[in-house]
Amino acid sequence: MPIGYSQLPPLLPVAGLRLAAVAAGIRYQGRDDLVVMEISAGANTAAVFTRNAFCAAPVSVAREHLADAMPRYLVINSGNANAGTGAGGLEDARQSCLALARLGACEAHEVLPFSTGVIGQRLAVDRLQAALPAVLAALSADGWTAAANAIKTTDTVAKGVSTTLEIEHRKITITGICKGAGMIRPDMATMLAYIGTDASVDAAALQQCLQAAVERSFNRITVDGDTSTNDACVLVATGACGLPAMRAGDADYALFCDTVAGVCERLAQLIVRDAEGATKFVTVNVAGGSDSGECLQVAYTVAQSPLVKTALFASDPNWGRILAAVGRAGLTDLDVNAVQIYLGDVCIVRDGGVADDYREADGQRVMDEAEILIDIRLGRGKACERIWTSDLSHDYVRINAEYRS
Amino acid sequence: MPIGYSQLPPLLPVAGLRLAAVAAGIRYQGRDDLVVMEISAGANTAAVFTRNAFCAAPVSVAREHLADAMPRYLVINSGNANAGTGAGGLEDARQSCLALARLGACEAHEVLPFSTGVIGQRLAVDRLQAALPAVLAALSADGWTAAANAIKTTDTVAKGVSTTLEIEHRKITITGICKGAGMIRPDMATMLAYIGTDASVDAAALQQCLQAAVERSFNRITVDGDTSTNDACVLVATGACGLPAMRAGDADYALFCDTVAGVCERLAQLIVRDAEGATKFVTVNVAGGSDSGECLQVAYTVAQSPLVKTALFASDPNWGRILAAVGRAGLTDLDVNAVQIYLGDVCIVRDGGVADDYREADGQRVMDEAEILIDIRLGRGKACERIWTSDLSHDYVRINAEYRS
Repeated sequence: MPIGYSQLPPLLPVAGLRLAAVAAGIRYQGRDDLVVMEISAGANTAAVFTRNAFCAAPVSVAREHLADAMPRYLVINSGNANAGTGAGGLEDARQSCLALARLGACEAHEVLPFSTGVIGQRLAVDRLQAALPAVLAALSADGWTAAANAIKTTDTVAKGVSTTLEIEHRKITITGICKGAGMIRPDMATMLAYIGTDASVDAAALQQCLQAAVERSFNRITVDGDTSTNDACVLVATGACGLPAMRAGDADYALFCDTVAGVCERLAQLIVRDAEGATKFVTVNVAGGSDSGECLQVAYTVAQSPLVKTALFASDPNWGRILAAVGRAGLTDLDVNAVQIYLGDVCIVRDGGVADDYREADGQRVMDEAEILIDIRLGRGKACERIWTSDLSHDYVRINAEYRS
Repeated sequence: MPIGYSQLPPLLPVAGLRLAAVAAGIRYQGRDDLVVMEISAGANTAAVFTRNAFCAAPVSVAREHLADAMPRYLVINSGNANAGTGAGGLEDARQSCLALARLGACEAHEVLPFSTGVIGQRLAVDRLQAALPAVLAALSADGWTAAANAIKTTDTVAKGVSTTLEIEHRKITITGICKGAGMIRPDMATMLAYIGTDASVDAAALQQCLQAAVERSFNRITVDGDTSTNDACVLVATGACGLPAMRAGDADYALFCDTVAGVCERLAQLIVRDAEGATKFVTVNVAGGSDSGECLQVAYTVAQSPLVKTALFASDPNWGRILAAVGRAGLTDLDVNAVQIYLGDVCIVRDGGVADDYREADGQRVMDEAEILIDIRLGRGKACERIWTSDLSHDYVRINAEYRS
C-alpha cells in the first residue's frame, strides 16, 4: 500500500485531449496495457527524457519526432520497455508510430512512442497494431483514469492529480498522470509522466516551464538510485482555453509554471509513496551547503544508503548510519563539528557526535511515523535542497528478485 | 555461509608479534570482543584509515599516535565503534591507550586503538580496562586465530590468510586477518584489517607498500556502498627476520609488495564472500575505458545498483539492468554501440542491445553459479579496473533492519 495515498482522485478532463486504454496483450493478461492520447491541432508539447546513455528505442524515436513536428498522438505501452533492443527495437517503435499515423490520418513523426516494462525483449508490434482501432474508437476526454491504470507496471495504484488555476478570468485545468515504481532516480524526468492543460503556451515557454518543474520534482526523487532507460515526462498545452499564447515574460507565466511544478511535485511524490516495497515516505532536507550541488550530493548519499534505508524500514533511529553517510558524501573540508542532523524536530547529531540532549525515545517517536523528515544542516553556506525517497524493505528485494519470474 | 570459503585456515605466527583475545563484555555476551597485539621494539608499522569525514574517535587517535611514534601495542574492540561519540569518545579512546600503556610499560602514544560495531554509543572503557591484565597475560605468537574471531561483528566466519615468500634465502611470513561485513565500500581501507610480517622494511617503503596494496584490494570492494567511519588497515613489519631494512628501490621490494597485495586481495575478497546476506561473489571487470577513473565509475555503478544486485540474488540473467546501470554511470559521449557486456563467457550485449546470438539458457547457466563475472568492455580506450561485490538478498535487509534490536 502506498504511504499516505490510497486511490486515484477524480481526474479533470482537459479540453483538446482525448485518451483511451485497451488490453493489447503485449505482456500482461487481463488488464489494459496500451494507451493512446489524441492531441488537438495547434497544441504545443514539451518533453524531457532520460539521460541514460542506453536510452530505450521509443525515447530515441520520440526525440527525433519531437524535433520535426508537434505531436498529434502519444502511444504508450506497458509491460515491455523496448530498451536494449538495438536496431530492431528502433524499427518496432517507428512501426508503432506509422501504424497509428495511418489510422489517425497524420504523419508518423506526429506520433510519439513510449514504453515501460521489462528491458531487452522485442515489442510485440503486431499485437499493438491490432489493438489500435479499438483504442482509437474509445478515445474520450474522460480517459485519464483508464490511462493512469494502463501505464502501471509494478505500481500498486494508479497515480494522478488534477488542479485548476485562473488566468485572465478563465479557469485553466492541469491534469497529470505518472507511473513508477522501481529503477527510480530520474535524471531529466521520471519513468513516465503525462501532463495536459488547456492553457495556451508558446512552445519555448512550455519547454522551459516543464524543465524547471521537472528539476524540482522528478529530478528530486530516488527509490534505488537506478536511472531508467525509459524516463520521459510530457507536458501538452492545447490552448483550448482560447487565450493568446503565454510567453516567458508574461504576467501569468510564473503562476502557470508554479502550478505545473506543483503538479509535478505531487506526481513525483506519488511515485515515492508507491515505491517498490516502500513502508516509509522520507524527505531528506539538506541546508547550509556552499552550493546546491553539494546539498544534493549529501542528500542522495543519505537517501541511497542501503544502511540508512534498512534502518528506516526497521523504524530504528540508528542516526549513526545517517552520520556515516553524511561523512562519506565526499564534501571537501567538511567541518563535522558544524554539522547538525535532525530526525523530524529532534536534534540527533551536534558537535561531531550524538547530541547531548538526545534521547532514544524521541528519535523512536519520529521513526515510528510513516512519513519521516531527515533534516541535515551543514553549517557552511546558504544553499539548500530537498529530495524524497523511500526505505529498503524485504518487499523491495522480493519484488525485484521475482520481477521477471 | 560465505561463498567459496568455509573456515579460517591455519594462521602462521609472525616473529615479533604476540596476540590474545578475551571476553571483556563490552557489548557481546559469551564471546571474545577485545584483542591486543604486542609489537616488538624496532618494528615499523604502516596504516591507512577511512576517508569518512565523520571518522570514529579511535581513528582520530590512532592517526595522532602514529604521527608521534611507532606503536608497541594495538588494542581492538568489537561490538562498539566509538564513532559519533564526540569529545567523550575521543577521551574514551585515549583512556584505553593510557590504561594499556601503563600495564605494558610504554607511552600512551605507542598504543593504537581500534573499534568496530554499533555507532554512537559510548565505549564501556571500564570493562575494557578491567580486561586488559587478562589479555596481556594471554599474549601468544599463536593468537592470530583468536584475534580473527574476536574482531567479528556481523561476520559469519573469521577471516585470515597466511603466506610466505623468500627474500635473500630467508623465509618471510605474512599473516593477515580482517573483518567485514556491512557498511563496506572502503575508501583507503576496509573495516578492520591487520597484517603482520617478520620482514624488515623501512617505514616509508612499508607505508608505500600498504597504500599500493590497499588500492588494489580493500579499495576495490563494495557491499553496500557505505564507507565506514572506522575503516583501518594496519601492516606491521617486525624485522625479526634479521635482514637489513628494505627500501623502495631494493630488488626484493617489488616481490614483497606483490605478496602483501596478494594477502590484501585475499582478505578483501573474504569480506565480500562473507558480506551481509551474500549468496553470490561477483567480480565486475571493466575494460576498454579511457582511464582508470571511468572504469571504476562504471564498475561501482553496476556493483551498487540495487536492481543488478537483486537480479544476482535471484540468479536472473536480467542483463537489461546491467545495461541500464552502465548507461547511467555518467560517462561523457559513451557510444553504446561500442559497448560489449559479458556474463562470464557469454556475450549478452553488443551493438547497443542484446547480442544476436544470446540465448537465455546461456545467461542462466552463468547466473546459477555462486561466483559470477560481469565483464564490461567499453570500447573506447585501454584502461581497465576490477572490483568485487555481492548480491542484495532478503538476508541483507533482515540483518540490517534487525542489527540494533
